[in-house]
Amino acid sequence: MRLLDQTLAAIRPLDPAAVAQAAERQRRLTKPPGSLGPLEDLGARLAGLAGTCPPPLPEPAAVAVFAGDHGVHAQGVTPWPQEVTTQMVQNFLAGGAVVNAFAAQVGASVVVVDVGVAATLDEAPGLLPRKVRAGTRDMTAGPALTRDEAVAAVEVGIEVAASLTDSGARALLTGDMGIANTTASAALIAAFTGADAAVVTGRGAGVDDATLRHKVSVVDRALARHAPEPSDPIGVLAAFGGLEHAALAGFVFAAAAARVPVILDGVIAGAAALAAKALAPDCLAACVAGHRSAEPGHAVALRTLRLEPLVDLGLRLGEGSGALLALPLVQSAARVLRDVATFDAAGVSEKSP
Amino acid sequence: MRLLDQTLAAIRPLDPAAVAQAAERQRRLTKPPGSLGPLEDLGARLAGLAGTCPPPLPEPAAVAVFAGDHGVHAQGVTPWPQEVTTQMVQNFLAGGAVVNAFAAQVGASVVVVDVGVAATLDEAPGLLPRKVRAGTRDMTAGPALTRDEAVAAVEVGIEVAASLTDSGARALLTGDMGIANTTASAALIAAFTGADAAVVTGRGAGVDDATLRHKVSVVDRALARHAPEPSDPIGVLAAFGGLEHAALAGFVFAAAAARVPVILDGVIAGAAALAAKALAPDCLAACVAGHRSAEPGHAVALRTLRLEPLVDLGLRLGEGSGALLALPLVQSAARVLRDVATFDAAGVSEKSP
Repeated sequence: MRLLDQTLAAIRPLDPAAVAQAAERQRRLTKPPGSLGPLEDLGARLAGLAGTCPPPLPEPAAVAVFAGDHGVHAQGVTPWPQEVTTQMVQNFLAGGAVVNAFAAQVGASVVVVDVGVAATLDEAPGLLPRKVRAGTRDMTAGPALTRDEAVAAVEVGIEVAASLTDSGARALLTGDMGIANTTASAALIAAFTGADAAVVTGRGAGVDDATLRHKVSVVDRALARHAPEPSDPIGVLAAFGGLEHAALAGFVFAAAAARVPVILDGVIAGAAALAAKALAPDCLAACVAGHRSAEPGHAVALRTLRLEPLVDLGLRLGEGSGALLALPLVQSAARVLRDVATFDAAGVSEKSP
Repeated sequence: MRLLDQTLAAIRPLDPAAVAQAAERQRRLTKPPGSLGPLEDLGARLAGLAGTCPPPLPEPAAVAVFAGDHGVHAQGVTPWPQEVTTQMVQNFLAGGAVVNAFAAQVGASVVVVDVGVAATLDEAPGLLPRKVRAGTRDMTAGPALTRDEAVAAVEVGIEVAASLTDSGARALLTGDMGIANTTASAALIAAFTGADAAVVTGRGAGVDDATLRHKVSVVDRALARHAPEPSDPIGVLAAFGGLEHAALAGFVFAAAAARVPVILDGVIAGAAALAAKALAPDCLAACVAGHRSAEPGHAVALRTLRLEPLVDLGLRLGEGSGALLALPLVQSAARVLRDVATFDAAGVSEKSP
């Protein structure tokens, strides 16, 4: 059985007993009931994922930055040259990017995965060479990937997540790098949600009005060409790419199979999670929306995924930056169930009925 | 010259040169310009506060939980017994509360300040005995505090903050505990913003509809009795209390005077910051809104303060919990300016014009 099928077969929903135990415990802790809002639900979900209450602390944490290039870059959807993907990978490896700064602040490790960078990268510490192909094909001219390539990229994500959890990671965070990958994200989100290209296509790393209009038309053309069928998520991933999206879907699958929470970053992760959900809805049990980005398609994706973001500051950087900012909130939600005393144990009076 | 006047005299606005230097540096760092949204502005403010770019990392961090009781509790504004203030102080000191769990997660220290708990507290490690009086008087029957008591409580806050920064703290976080203190907060916010009691009074730790209506009427009565004059902030603090609000205003003053950022927690800190702003507008240069709570008066206070919260999850716990969740975001905003490489240094191409 191939790795993807094995992994999907291992994915289970939350353990309802642990969820209920956590919800009941929340009511007995020394705080007004419900006063931690969505962090109480999150704590219960973490318990349900681990199958035990209190849940383990989601640490150590690791962010995997999946890097890939996009054939659709040739359509002029962004003012950034394609080589910036490679240059930013080098920047990640040198520790000079925002993802490195945020990871250092919250105590997460960073690995960079070349799942499809156009250029050939030299070996380097921290770089996992897992290139499936040197960038996708142009989605407006044909499928971005073959089905086999899409599955291979999904399996890269599975393998990376499994190796991180095998090494002890108890929180996984999604990261991504790929010039033009908000274009692929928009196409994926439109395909899986049925939303119009104009609604889900945004300015990405910063395009002007004319380029935005052109970018919408490029997404529209790709959608018209492929007539994607959401019930065939591998087919949708193959149609539009990117390799990092496919890998991120696999990353989510492996996290869910290992019952380790995976904190999703922005629109690229949101698009990948829609693909993952289409293939294995129960994988969402492991998913936490780290933040909501400024990219309009991300809000559409989160609504469809029914995930409420923890941080909502209109960031639009990617790399895993939004997921890293959310990590302490996720850890704090778990810690409440572990560390906070009950009314009984602390001798604190409850409110009068 | 009394401590309050000395402290106010030391407060200065942001250093415009350091702010400009940070803004210029943000544009050269390896990320799309503006992609970190409000965290870029925050980084620039931290630079302006420190008077240098990059700013120092805001760590180590310390949260001070100011505890006090409220005479207005006698009016039946909450179903929680007054002794819960004391019981929760004991819980903080034993490490069993949410503030302890969150502080442990983000690496902050916790001190508890008895600025006005009704009961007599035994000495304990981590407890600063600074009782100005054993709870405020009932604001519906007369002034909650004398002017001298209000100033004394402000000076407690100054002294606590100064002692924390003298000990090396480079980020201060506000915390509070006091059954009925959302009632005092509502009165303060109404007094300083002119908003109606019905708009700024909320359910606090959880009151039913009937108690909420009663709570609004209590705040209305107090406002009618005192006819507060926002240009006399000490008079307003004396009219309504609480001792923890006055202390928090002093805490903000001393942070601003020491040019150390102070992360505000919820509605109690918001009400205190309005008083602080009325006395020394430049103290807001040091203030970061950690979160926006579910309490309606908090949103009103933040709008008047022109502070955008970092976390917005509808929490309603207090204790400093929301400020602690925001701490890693504040630290990350500073770290970007310190650690992230420039386009030039990293050899990353910028977008085409």
